[in-house]
This record gives sequence, C-alpha cells and structure tokens, in this order.
Amino acid sequence: MTIGAEQRLREMGITLPAPPKPLGAYVPAVQAGNLLFLSGALPMEGGVPKFRGRIGAALTLEDGRNATRLAALNALALAKQHLGSLDKVSRVVRLTVSLLTTPEFGDHPKVADAASELFAEVFGADEASTRMVSGVASLPAGACVVVEIVLST
Amino acid sequence: MTIGAEQRLREMGITLPAPPKPLGAYVPAVQAGNLLFLSGALPMEGGVPKFRGRIGAALTLEDGRNATRLAALNALALAKQHLGSLDKVSRVVRLTVSLLTTPEFGDHPKVADAASELFAEVFGADEASTRMVSGVASLPAGACVVVEIVLST
Amino acid sequence: MTIGAEQRLREMGITLPAPPKPLGAYVPAVQAGNLLFLSGALPMEGGVPKFRGRIGAALTLEDGRNATRLAALNALALAKQHLGSLDKVSRVVRLTVSLLTTPEFGDHPKVADAASELFAEVFGADEASTRMVSGVASLPAGACVVVEIVLST
Repeated sequence: MTIGAEQRLREMGITLPAPPKPLGAYVPAVQAGNLLFLSGALPMEGGVPKFRGRIGAALTLEDGRNATRLAALNALALAKQHLGSLDKVSRVVRLTVSLLTTPEFGDHPKVADAASELFAEVFGADEASTRMVSGVASLPAGACVVVEIVLST
Repeated sequence: MTIGAEQRLREMGITLPAPPKPLGAYVPAVQAGNLLFLSGALPMEGGVPKFRGRIGAALTLEDGRNATRLAALNALALAKQHLGSLDKVSRVVRLTVSLLTTPEFGDHPKVADAASELFAEVFGADEASTRMVSGVASLPAGACVVVEIVLST
Repeated sequence: MTIGAEQRLREMGITLPAPPKPLGAYVPAVQAGNLLFLSGALPMEGGVPKFRGRIGAALTLEDGRNATRLAALNALALAKQHLGSLDKVSRVVRLTVSLLTTPEFGDHPKVADAASELFAEVFGADEASTRMVSGVASLPAGACVVVEIVLST
C-alpha cells in the first residue's frame, strides 16, 4: 500500500509553515483541468522573508539551500491550503527556481536541489519534477529565492 | 446575469491597443486543451515600447505601474486577436511579470498589481490569477517590463 | 502526405546531441495530459556548456544565436529521449529563452529566433510557438542561455 504525502510529512517530522498571504491582488493557486498552478513562494517565516541578499556575497551556497527549502515548504503550504490535503497531489510537474545571485555565481543546481530533495522526500524520489533555474536581478522584499510550482492532481 | 469582459471594457472606457506584431519567428497565442498560452507582451504603444529604463533609477514605481498596465493591455489585445472576443476567457490562470529594476528594488508586488488590478476590472475581482514576479537583467528593446499570461477558455 | 519531424531532421542533416544528463535531482520531461513539460536545456556539447559569458561583452550576438540553437537542439534531444520519436510532437506550445546579457543588450528577439527558426525547420513554419524571452543575471555553469519548452503531443 502506497504511503501518501501527508503521512510522509508526519514520519519525517516536517511541519509546513502557515501559508503565506499574497503580497498583492493575486491568489495562491488556480486549478485548470488536472494542473494546479501555484503563485511564486518566497522563503517566508513569520510573515517576512528570512533570507535576504545575494547568494555568493552576503549569503553562502548553504544559506541559499536553506532559503530554497523554506520557499519550497511555503509552496507546499499554499498547495495544501488550496487542496485540503497534499495526498491529492499526483506529481510536481514543473519547478522553477529563481535565485538572487552574484553575476559570477554558477552553482544554481546545487541550490535548487534543496527544493527538489524536499519534493522527493514528500512525493517520492521516483516522481521527480522537471526543473528550470536561473539567476534574477532582483526579487520582492529582497528575498534571495522564489519557488514556483505546477502540480498535477 | 453575468456581465462579460467585453461589456466591462466598454463600461470602463478601456480601449485595447492594436495587438503588437511579433518581434520574431513566433506567434502571439497557442491553444492547448482549454489553456491559451500567450507570448510575452511589452508596453508597446504605436509599435515601440513606451517605457524604457530601470525601475528605481530612470523610471519611478509609478512609471513601472503604468508600463505594466500597458503591457497587460497589450496581452489582452493579443488574446482578443486570437479568440475574437475576451468573453471566451474563463480565467487568467497565471500571470508572470518580469521587471527591469535596479539591484536594490524590492517593490515588485506594487508594480505587478497594476496588471492584476486591470485583470480584476476586466474579468472580476473574484477570479484573480496566480502570479510570479521577478527582476530581470535586460529586456527586448530596453523595455522595463514584460507580461506573460496563461488563460483558460 | 505530411512529412514528420524525424524525416525533416534527416533531410536537413541535423543530428541531435546526446540528451544532456540532469544537473541535479530532477527529470528531463514530465507529461501532464497532452502537455509535455521539459526541463531547461543549456547549450551542452560533450557534457559541458559550449558558450559561456555575457552576450554583448565576451560573446557576440552571433555567438548567442549559435548557443541558443545548440540549447534548442539539446531540448529536442530531451524530448526525443522521453517520447521515443519527435513525430509524436504535435506542436511547440511555449518557448522560454533566458539569456545572459550585458545590462544594455536589447536584441533578445534576434538571438531567440535561432531557437524559433530551428523549430520551424523541424516542425514546420506554420506551427510556430508562443515565446517569452528575457535577460537573466546568472545561469548554471556560466552558460549564456537556457531554453525551456512545453510541447503538446
């Protein structure tokens, strides 16, 4: 019998943060057919972005990974808020990780893996997503990462 | 009886710009199932981008909002060109706003709201989209914003 | 009788590169309904990115076009690896081209056309995709471009 995402979260002792409130006139999630589009999620903790600054300068690669995992947890909190239960998620179809980095930074995959590894823990390593990662010039509230996912249900 | 998007546009006195011509070998819109993917729309007026430069430097936040609303109007013009009528739009599923900003800029949500607020006026505030916003390093023709939408029909 | 994408590749003497290995904990492609989402593809040749640096500085516009065509070929290699044959592709629905440029660069459409022109050669000029292009601040391994596509099957 397959173990669901909610049971996996419990077994690993992962507590999702409170779903972040939208920062403007948008909604956290919209379902279209069997795809669930989620808004971009920042590394929010207690209503403010926890990691600010550029990866490769003020922030280390490990800071970037911690921020990316936190942003991914925020994305899951949004998905759970919309669906009621993460057991309704069939798969993470697409993961976009946008990182605030120095111009010379090139280790984006190692940072983005912090999100991919979380999703592997929650949804199973056999069901990895596609991924797109890039370095951006600026982000809302000076956050160092935004994570955007499209799920299938 | 529900008021449609076309009637809302008329009542608010909003005139869509001429749909911008593609800047290369692509098309404005492709339908896949009930999703309509639109190409990125710049703040075009009379065939040239109206707002050029970085938000936070040459351009103010208010300039950025005006540019973002104009780009969103261009996106709606593309959708109408493809569909014949915006009444065929069920919802804006996903809105991506990419802004040309200074490195320190952090008020992306206020700028992106200019697009979200336009869509609320046209399609109703109860049907807001998901949203992803980030700061980019450069944009075609020096424009300060590109708006990309995915609609459901 | 329609000529398929595989025959077009043969007639034009285009050989796809070996499909690039993921740089982290993600997969090259995920199908959701009739949409096939692909991971971002770099201009890989022999396991390393061939074009590194900024378009407009170390790299010319023509370098950028060559890199973008190579990245698009890598994306097609990923699609073929997943589908078995590119004849199963109905259309390129969406093409995202993210370019590493100088801050002043504005000729993104000319660079991105290298990918659009390749897809026109392979899938037919009447079936062009939607497109989104922007300049990013940094990319994995210092590559100058990443190409991301969504296909319908």
